[in-house]
This record gives sequence, structure tokens and C-alpha cells, in this order.
Amino acid sequence: MKAIRLAKPTDGSFVLDDVPTPAPGDGQVLVKVRAAGICGTDRHLWHWDESIRDGLKPPFTPGHEFCGEIVELGKNVTHWKVNDYVSCEMHIVCNRCGACKNGKPHLCANHKVVGIHQDGTFAQYLVLPASNLIKLPAALPPKIGAFLDALGNAVHTALSTELPGRAVAILGFGPIGAMTAAVAEHCGAGAIFITDVNDHNLSRARAWAKQCQNRGTRRTPIHVLDVRGTGRREAIETVKSSTGGDGCDAVLEISGAEVAVNDGLEMLRPGGAMRLLGLTKAKNVNINNYNRDVVFKGVDMQGIFGRRIFDTWHQMLALLNAGLDVDFVVTDECALEDYETGLKRFDRGEAMKVVLYPNGMPKT
Amino acid sequence: MKAIRLAKPTDGSFVLDDVPTPAPGDGQVLVKVRAAGICGTDRHLWHWDESIRDGLKPPFTPGHEFCGEIVELGKNVTHWKVNDYVSCEMHIVCNRCGACKNGKPHLCANHKVVGIHQDGTFAQYLVLPASNLIKLPAALPPKIGAFLDALGNAVHTALSTELPGRAVAILGFGPIGAMTAAVAEHCGAGAIFITDVNDHNLSRARAWAKQCQNRGTRRTPIHVLDVRGTGRREAIETVKSSTGGDGCDAVLEISGAEVAVNDGLEMLRPGGAMRLLGLTKAKNVNINNYNRDVVFKGVDMQGIFGRRIFDTWHQMLALLNAGLDVDFVVTDECALEDYETGLKRFDRGEAMKVVLYPNGMPKT
Amino acid sequence: MKAIRLAKPTDGSFVLDDVPTPAPGDGQVLVKVRAAGICGTDRHLWHWDESIRDGLKPPFTPGHEFCGEIVELGKNVTHWKVNDYVSCEMHIVCNRCGACKNGKPHLCANHKVVGIHQDGTFAQYLVLPASNLIKLPAALPPKIGAFLDALGNAVHTALSTELPGRAVAILGFGPIGAMTAAVAEHCGAGAIFITDVNDHNLSRARAWAKQCQNRGTRRTPIHVLDVRGTGRREAIETVKSSTGGDGCDAVLEISGAEVAVNDGLEMLRPGGAMRLLGLTKAKNVNINNYNRDVVFKGVDMQGIFGRRIFDTWHQMLALLNAGLDVDFVVTDECALEDYETGLKRFDRGEAMKVVLYPNGMPKT
Amino acid sequence: MKAIRLAKPTDGSFVLDDVPTPAPGDGQVLVKVRAAGICGTDRHLWHWDESIRDGLKPPFTPGHEFCGEIVELGKNVTHWKVNDYVSCEMHIVCNRCGACKNGKPHLCANHKVVGIHQDGTFAQYLVLPASNLIKLPAALPPKIGAFLDALGNAVHTALSTELPGRAVAILGFGPIGAMTAAVAEHCGAGAIFITDVNDHNLSRARAWAKQCQNRGTRRTPIHVLDVRGTGRREAIETVKSSTGGDGCDAVLEISGAEVAVNDGLEMLRPGGAMRLLGLTKAKNVNINNYNRDVVFKGVDMQGIFGRRIFDTWHQMLALLNAGLDVDFVVTDECALEDYETGLKRFDRGEAMKVVLYPNGMPKT
Repeated sequence: MKAIRLAKPTDGSFVLDDVPTPAPGDGQVLVKVRAAGICGTDRHLWHWDESIRDGLKPPFTPGHEFCGEIVELGKNVTHWKVNDYVSCEMHIVCNRCGACKNGKPHLCANHKVVGIHQDGTFAQYLVLPASNLIKLPAALPPKIGAFLDALGNAVHTALSTELPGRAVAILGFGPIGAMTAAVAEHCGAGAIFITDVNDHNLSRARAWAKQCQNRGTRRTPIHVLDVRGTGRREAIETVKSSTGGDGCDAVLEISGAEVAVNDGLEMLRPGGAMRLLGLTKAKNVNINNYNRDVVFKGVDMQGIFGRRIFDTWHQMLALLNAGLDVDFVVTDECALEDYETGLKRFDRGEAMKVVLYPNGMPKT
Repeated sequence: MKAIRLAKPTDGSFVLDDVPTPAPGDGQVLVKVRAAGICGTDRHLWHWDESIRDGLKPPFTPGHEFCGEIVELGKNVTHWKVNDYVSCEMHIVCNRCGACKNGKPHLCANHKVVGIHQDGTFAQYLVLPASNLIKLPAALPPKIGAFLDALGNAVHTALSTELPGRAVAILGFGPIGAMTAAVAEHCGAGAIFITDVNDHNLSRARAWAKQCQNRGTRRTPIHVLDVRGTGRREAIETVKSSTGGDGCDAVLEISGAEVAVNDGLEMLRPGGAMRLLGLTKAKNVNINNYNRDVVFKGVDMQGIFGRRIFDTWHQMLALLNAGLDVDFVVTDECALEDYETGLKRFDRGEAMKVVLYPNGMPKT
Repeated sequence: MKAIRLAKPTDGSFVLDDVPTPAPGDGQVLVKVRAAGICGTDRHLWHWDESIRDGLKPPFTPGHEFCGEIVELGKNVTHWKVNDYVSCEMHIVCNRCGACKNGKPHLCANHKVVGIHQDGTFAQYLVLPASNLIKLPAALPPKIGAFLDALGNAVHTALSTELPGRAVAILGFGPIGAMTAAVAEHCGAGAIFITDVNDHNLSRARAWAKQCQNRGTRRTPIHVLDVRGTGRREAIETVKSSTGGDGCDAVLEISGAEVAVNDGLEMLRPGGAMRLLGLTKAKNVNINNYNRDVVFKGVDMQGIFGRRIFDTWHQMLALLNAGLDVDFVVTDECALEDYETGLKRFDRGEAMKVVLYPNGMPKT
Repeated sequence: MKAIRLAKPTDGSFVLDDVPTPAPGDGQVLVKVRAAGICGTDRHLWHWDESIRDGLKPPFTPGHEFCGEIVELGKNVTHWKVNDYVSCEMHIVCNRCGACKNGKPHLCANHKVVGIHQDGTFAQYLVLPASNLIKLPAALPPKIGAFLDALGNAVHTALSTELPGRAVAILGFGPIGAMTAAVAEHCGAGAIFITDVNDHNLSRARAWAKQCQNRGTRRTPIHVLDVRGTGRREAIETVKSSTGGDGCDAVLEISGAEVAVNDGLEMLRPGGAMRLLGLTKAKNVNINNYNRDVVFKGVDMQGIFGRRIFDTWHQMLALLNAGLDVDFVVTDECALEDYETGLKRFDRGEAMKVVLYPNGMPKT
């Protein structure tokens, strides 16, 4: 079968190759990949960035977002059948550590990730543990099913705090920030503040905000704020003045920028909620006004990782079924063979979410 | 000034009368009523129902929903000025009991209600404590500002459990049930199940459900279920089969019917949330399958009363500002003098929310 | 091996018998039972009560509380070894239903119970799934390890609401009520109100309350209230007057008595927490003052079932390690052969917790 | 009357002086101070530290911890009477900001503090708003009533996360850290880890830990860890190895040390709770392993400020009534005139909590 392989420990590590189709083991299934999304992590793998090399063992197939059909069942697989349309929670957990034993497997201390620690989705087929699969409704377009793992991050982040009638700032409008904003708008946020420093992202955010004002009776106030230069200070002032001086109810930090963490803390009202999904390039984050912004404010901060298994998945599918619109996130679609075009556009910030079709483009 | 008075301790107790305009005392304001909603409680007062007589001292002016403008400030009133467009939390709390002292004043053990324990809003003017006022945005139509107290009940109920991506049953589609459903739809519920036993309510629910499918990309599945006769059992089956056999995530009980409480418990998934706003006519409620539906299910039940002060108000205004659509709830609008027409239509279930205009109909 | 068998579908259904020692299957272990507690459920089985017959298939070995050592590992059992000192979560869950998939396996819709649906602990040996085992510290006396399943119910109930500095009523002082009270006292409840209608239980409660006043600086106010006859009304008054008129913060209902559910609701402060563990004999429970005690009070009620897997277990072992004293609950200890003496004393309310030793009495 | 005055804007700013006894205004009471605690804030005032000067207007009377009796009622004071034994919430809130309006007045954006922004408790008498008073039980010794404001910080911090059966690290064993530890032990923490870098504090912590092992059946494991030099790393290892490798459930940060914040994050289990009360000297705090310790861990961090009004007070009084033992915190007691001795011992870390008696030492 065809597969993209992380083969060379160097920048530009990906190679399109022919590899044997794997066979499903005990408790596993073989899945035919219909569509697979490219994630920021894949870009790090492609560049063989120092931040991501640790413990990786090339060659392997990257990719951890996808949807597809089951084509073969391994031994002892029950409750699933060939042709089931599925996606999969790509964090393989240990079921032994404290987090797993106490109902928080998404925080498993020993988890492995498909597409990083074992062969992933940038291939025609892959093998997955049946216990991690999730059934998809037939009506869900593969174009969207292609990146549920990423949408799950957004849903997990957005729904980790109360949205209805609340003023929410979303820091960063890359693919996950954009999806987080879509969830916030869909779920009745009272006001949305979006910040970014990238022209592509800002113009996509403005287009999305406009689109949201032309759908039914809904007219959530959406502020798109360029936080370059003096824009940082202005953004904080906009949030404050738009919330009667109090600050916003929640900040969803997706950017992984130290300045965003600090601005977010300043934007928050006393007792507000800060959710931290974005990963920083540097190891450390300097909080500039700890007493004022963390202690005196009684702020409620929470790191967000992965997706609650499977509660986030169930909410995500229900939101999509009710019309959550994340179509605008997909800017590029291409065959597996043409991955480089999409990956390079993504790398330059021109593309948002790139969807690959390893077994042929969909008929339209 | 003109006022509707509860004057006669008998069915049909209301009389339109001329009474002196009151003067605001220390800490109070005089408000000119722009619009006032008729509530189910007012119907009970009109009928002089046994359930509501306790401790009441006619004559007084009923009505506890309204919006209007401040026309005079009493002594020691700061932060408010003449012409401010306002509504008001109509539960006057004691600030002394355990609930008040611990941040739950909406559960005050000694609260009094404007329009029941003191003169209310079915008049050209009324006096209110400044500390209970809430400022309204100029853009909010008086037609909607007229019943924020009731909308607040709906918002309080709906937002007392998680809505986004959750399957929610709303039992009863009278005015508050209808508004609760509107909040659930606006805030991203994954599926909505509405039950009622009244033809008017059921046909209004169906019309609303249809309207919701024609707005933008949103298409929340809304099931309207007639629970008369065998419909009771069918409704439970519909909820179960639509939720993969698990049952719904939340039940919002607005009807005050004993059978609805029981059906709601049966509809719920294990660990689901039941919110209880509806008041029953009888003192007692018989739970039919206590072990099965309450204990084994680990159900989470909560009574809902009033509105969180002022958090519910802030969420409500933010939702309205973002386009929460409750226009469909107002079926009748009339001048104060014509209240009987509206009240009788409401009494027969023909009207949903009736809005009175004590100082003249709005210009259109 | 020796085992007590539920052999006859009639009152007095238990028989001591010799049966083959079972062999552990795939993923299972064989455990040698050191000590096993008798539970109220076992009494129902012994009497072959109508309430418990449903779906049961005699003959089988009852008993679902125990501690012991692993003596043999089945295939594919990792992380466990022979001689490990263990207890076990006796609810075997399906891992497929909504509750299991969303981190609430203790509410599994398809769970089976060891000692009811498969052979239990009133035997020298039994087979258990390795995934349900929990390791016990060597220092934990078998006398206490014998009933962790039941203590887990008490810990689950008590810790499902905030205890520190809170006034807590515990309705029923049978074995689980007594352990719930011990947890509340250990965890800093501000005041404890115990109700019962049985002379044995009341005198044990009074003895325990006295014992609690003679340990270190701790002097939690403990009120033991006989709620027979006029005692019901007096108990409610005592709770109210001891809490400044507000009512208590939490009620833990263990008795399964309809009057207790109602009295508990009346004892609660507005916004208070009611936890419902006790199972009623009748199917229905009549709530006498629904509007007043549930809706207006904004009460927070929750059914409690089983133990959170394994979070409750971890808290329970930590509490025991820190000196949680439940020794007083064990009134009777006997060899497996002498079970009838203990069971009959338990049946008459003379014994509280009876511990059986299937492989010989412990040396002292 | 006699009062300590912050008179000189310089190190050693306090002067004992004679000033006029104030008169209570509208809604105020005059209170005779029975006992008053010295807090770390008072030390900053005494040194006229740069960190605390902002907006202060000497001369004024410092001190914000106390108990005493009402001696005179101002106009419009109801529900209080002369001779009532009281303490007082010393944060005077605005009742207008978002936090105040939404049930979180302890996070008021405009609060003023008695003893900082208006005359405080280091005097024979002071004037206070009646609405902030809290009645004390007669049995509460003035020696303890002297510092309820500080004990309230400890109770607020400790009870902001679940304690029963949980492994809790308390960073810093100054007066508030010591009281936080006492609350954790009283409320059933499963294990307690105490860190400090000061010999006095460490030896007091060890003495307290020993004392806790000799009271009744309780034997909470308490680890006292010197985190100087290599002790930092060893402390983290001790926490991990004592919790099965997972890390502790909660970290209560009282020290205000940047290294403690970082060590605390590392000590925590995935999904654990970090509570941040300690104020840092520097404005910024550098989080060293943000991705690893905040994001991937899904950590739950919360700033803690003041006391929940009045819920923390009610829990605190209930805990004291049930025997919460904080006597060991008081190392020094002296007459108002002798404040310098106590203050200097406190300044050198020799004293823990110093209690002043402005109206004469208590008879013993």
C-alpha cells in the first residue's frame, strides 16, 4: 500500500513509499483510510523539529486524524463489523496509572499516540485497537470526519468552561482556534474576542465573523483583534470596555504564545476561567503580574490535553449533527500523492486544514 | 394613575382602578412601566386560587414582570438616574438568612415578591428598591423586556445543566417551557425533546421546531411529543431510541405534572440531570420507581427557583444581545385597559405570553 | 472446597456444601478468601425475598464483600502475582454502554454483581476478573478488609457532598449508616445528626458518639435522634435549632424509609444536598411537600450507587491508612461453618457487621 | 484611646499614640478590641516596604485581625446589640462590580481593607460596618478569635479543593501554612506533605506532626520536607514515591516562592489541583515546564484571595466548634504597649502568630 513515511531524521523528513499492508492483531481492526487531516504536529515531524524528536523511532507513518471503514477484524473483536464507518481516539492509554484508574484516561501518564509512536493515518490502511474506535454517522462528510481528533481538542477546550451567555476570548485563529471559535458561537457565547498576529488568520477570522452575522436571527458580537504592536494593549482595552469594565468570563488560549497567556490573564474578570491548550516553543512561560492577575483575581486556570474519552467525542458528534459548521476550516483537499503541495501551503500559513485522501479523491 | 387591583377575594378578583401614584422612599426609585407580562401566577391571583391565597392582603396591584424608565429617585439612591431603562429582580431578599449570607440570595428564606407582597407592575407606575434594578440596553424591545423575570426562570433552568452537545428533554411548552427550549436550541443542545398534553402548546412547539430548521446551518433535532394516552410510553421510547438506548442527558421539568416528573426520571440516562422548576397543584409527588429511577440511576436532581441574582440576568441579557429569539412567545399585546381580553385568552391556553402596555401601546 | 450455597428457592435458602474449586479463565485470578462480610443483600438472598429474586439462577455462592490472596493467575493476567493481598470491585461492568464510555462505569447499565449473578465470597476460593482487583496494604486487618465493598458505599455517599465544617444528617445507623457517620466525623463535619428507629442501632450510635468525644482535641457535636412517634418532628426541630434556623447542609439517606426521605428534605437548608443511597421496600416514594421542599428550596438531590471505580477505593484506603476508625462496626466474627449464628443475629438486628473466615479464624 | 499608628513613611513606621475614640456613623458600630493578631501584611507596613506603599495615606492605625465586643451602635443598625461578641470580614466591598453582583464579593474589584485603607485593630476601639460583622460563640477563646481573618485565608485555601482521602502538599509553614495544614489534618486528608526552608518553621512543623500522631486513632501520614539545596528534588521524589508514582492530589501554595510554584506543579498528579494563596515579592513568576506541568498534566490551578463572604466564616466557626486545633500557632501574646517585642520576634521568624491585647491581658 502507499504510505507517507517519516524516513529521514532531517528537515523534510517525509517520503511517499510502498509498504506492506499491516494485519490486525488480537483486539485490533484494519481500517481503510477515507480522509486524513494534517495537524501542526505533522509539520513538526516533517521539519524534524528538536521539540518533537524525543523517543521517536523512524521510519514510521505519521498522521493521527482520519475517518475510514473497517476492512478486517482481528481476533476477539466484538461489537464492530466490516464496513463500519469510524474514527478513532488516537491516544492509546495504559489503563493502569492513577489517571486511567480514576476516570481521567485522557491524562494517562503512559499514553502512546498513533502516528507518532506507531504507524498512523497518512497511508491507505492502518491497524487500530478496537477499543479506541468510535462509530460515525453515515451523514458525516469524510471531509469533516478527516480531522475529528483536532476538532475534539477544540470541543474539549471550549466546553471545559461555561459558554452560554458568557464573554469568551479565543487566543489564536489557527485551525484549532478557528474550530474553538465555531464551537463557542454555536453554543451561545454572549460575545467572542479573537486575537491573532498572522494576516492570513486575521482575514479568515474576519470572514468567518461576517458569515456568522448572516445566519438566522443569531448575531453574536465577534471582535477580531490584531495583537501586533500596540494592538496588544488595545485588545485588552476592547475586552474590558465591552464587558462593562469587568473583563471577559473565559479565555481559551490556543496560540501557545507567552504574551497571549499574559494578555489572557489580564483580559479576564476576577474569578474568570483560563483554559490552556496551546503548546509553547520555549519550555518556560513567564507570568508577568502573578499577584495581580492570578492570586488577587482568584483566577481559575486549567491545562487541556487530548479529548475526554469518549465524552468529548459524543458531544462533538452531537454538535456536528445539530449543524456545527466547521467547513470553513478546510482550505485544501488533495490526494495522498500530492501531500507536499498542501503541507507546504500549511507550513506557510496559507492553508488552514489540509485534508488528504489516501484512497482517491471523493466524487462530487 | 391607572392600576389593575386585586380587590375582591373571589374568582375574577381583578378590577381596573385609579389609585395615587406612589412616592419612592429611602433607597427606592419610582419607575414608569413601559410593558408588563402576564404570568401564570397572575392567573392564580385572578382566580383567587386556594393555592396562592396564603398571607396575601388585598387590595394590591399584581404583576411582577416589566420594563420601564426611572422617573424619580428616592433618598440615598446612587448609580441610577432618571430615564434609565430598567427591569428589576422582583424577589426582595432579606440579606440576613443563611442563603443570603452565603451567596445564594435567590433561595432567601424570607423573600417577598413584588406584585404579590407589595404593589406590582400592572399599573402606570411602581416603586422599587434601587438595589434590585438591572439596566437594560436601549436596543432591547419593550415587548421582550416586559417578561425578563419569566425568561430568567427559563435561563436559570436551562443553564443549570450543561447544554452544548447534550440531549435535553423539556417537559411542558407553556411560556416558560417554550423559552427554555429556545435557550437550549440557542446554546447548542445536541437534541431537544418537547412534551406537552395541550393542543395549543403542541402546535406552537411544532411551528417553532420548523422555524428552527430554517435558520442558517443550524438543524438541532427537535422532537415534539404528545404525551396523552399511549403517547407517554412512546415518548420515553423515542428518547431512548434517539440516544442509543442510554436516555437523555438532562430533563428540564417545567410542567408541574406528577406524571412528567416520573416520565422524566425514566427518560434520563444513568447519571443524568433533572431540573425541577414546575410547581404541582397537589402538595405531594409520588415517585413511582424510586430504586430504579433515582438510586440505581445515580440521578442528579435539582429544584430551580427564581433567578440567580444577578448572574442569571447577565447571562440572559447577553443571550438576547446575541440573538436569542423569544419573539414567538408573545402572542398577545394590549393596553392595560384591555387586560381582560388577554388574560382570558391566556386562561384558555389560547395565548402564550400576553404583554400589557400601561402607558400606551408602542408606536410601530 | 467449602462454600455456602443459595440452593433452595425458599426462606432459609443457604446450605453449607462441598463444591469443586473453580479455575481462573482468561484475564481472571483465583483468590483464597481470608475474610468476608455479610451484607443486607445476603440477608435478602437468605430469605429469598421477592424483591431480590428477579433473574437469579440458584444454586450459586452468595457474598460480595471480602479480602484475600491471589493463589493462581489465569492467562493474560499481567501486573498481578500470586500472594498479592487484594479486594475487588464486585460490580462487573460492560465497558460498552454510555455510562462506561463516559467515565461513569459505576452506573453501567449492564453490570453484573459477584455473589448475585456469579459465585461469590462465602467460600474458600473464588474466581474474579483481574481488571477489577485492588491491592490492599499489608497493614490493613482482614477484619476490615472483609467489607470494603460496603465501606465503599459509605465513603461514596459521604464524600459525594462537602463534609468539612458542614452540618450533616445521616438517616439510619445500620452498618452502612454507621460507617457513613464515621467518615463524616473523620473528615471534619461541623455537626452530625443521626436518626434511627431501632433500639440496637440507637444505642450503638450513642456509644459511638461518646467514643468520638474522647479522642484528642476533636469534639464534633453528634446528635443521636430517635425518630419514632413524636421523635420525627422533634428531630427536624433539633436540626433546625442547631443550625441557626437554616437547616443542615447535607442529608445522607441510608435507611430506605419513605418517611426519612421526607424528613430529610425538611431538615435541609435551602440549596442543601440530599444523597440517596437507601433502597426502599416499596417501589414508590411519596414526596409530601414537593413545591416547598424540592422546588422552592432549590434542593440538590443525588442517587448514589456502588462505588466510583476506582476513585472511591483510593479515597477509602487513604482514609483507613490515616486512621478512619470503623472497628466498632464489626460486632461478630465467625468461621464459615458457623455462619448461621452470625446471620441470625444480623437478621434480628443484634449484630451490625458479621465477618466470616472461610479458611480459618485469624490467630490473635 | 491608645492606638498603634503607622505615622512615619520609613522602616519602623509604627508609633504608639493617644488618639480620639471614633464615633460610629450610619450603619456602623463601635467595637472594643479584645485581641488582635499581627499579620505578615502588618510587617510590610511596619517596614514601609515598597511593595505595599501604593495608595496608602499615613497616619492610620494598622491591624486587620481581631475579636471584641460591640460597645455602641450607629444609626440604622439592626440585628446587632451592645455586648455582642464579634469578629469582622475586613474586606469592605463595593456591592456594584461584576464580582459583587454575581455572588463573588470576595473578588470585588474595588474592595478596601480595614487596617490598610481605614483605621484598623491595633487600638482599643475601632469603627466597622455592621454588615461585615460576624457573631462569635461565647466559647471561642479571644486568643483564637484574634486572628480569624488569617485563619479564614487558610480555611478558604484548604477547602477550595477536596481534602478527605486526598494526598495534599502544603508549601510553606508560616502562620497561614500551619493553619492550612491543621485544617487538612482535621478534615481527613489522606497524606500531608509540608515544605519549608526556614529552621524555625521546619521544627514547628515537625513538632506539630508528632502531636497529630498522639490524638485518638488518627494517624495521618505527615511528611515534613526541608526544600533547601538538594532537598527540593528529594521532596518531589518523596511525594511521587508516597503516591504510587502518580503525584499528590492537591498542592496548596502558601509560601509565595517561585520555586515552590514550580515544585508544586511537578509534585501534582495529572489532573491535580493547585491552589495559589502566597504572594510573591517579585512581580513575575516563571513557570519552568509549562507544556509538561500545566498543559499535558491538565492541571487545575486557582488563585485564592480573602475569604468567601460569609461561607468561609461559617465553615471556620464550625470547624473550631468541632475541635479544629490551631492553638499551636499562637507563640506570643502581649499587651498593646509591648507590641514591639512580638513584632520583632515575628520579623525574625521566631514567633509564629503574635496576639496583642489592647484592653488588657486576659485573666488566666
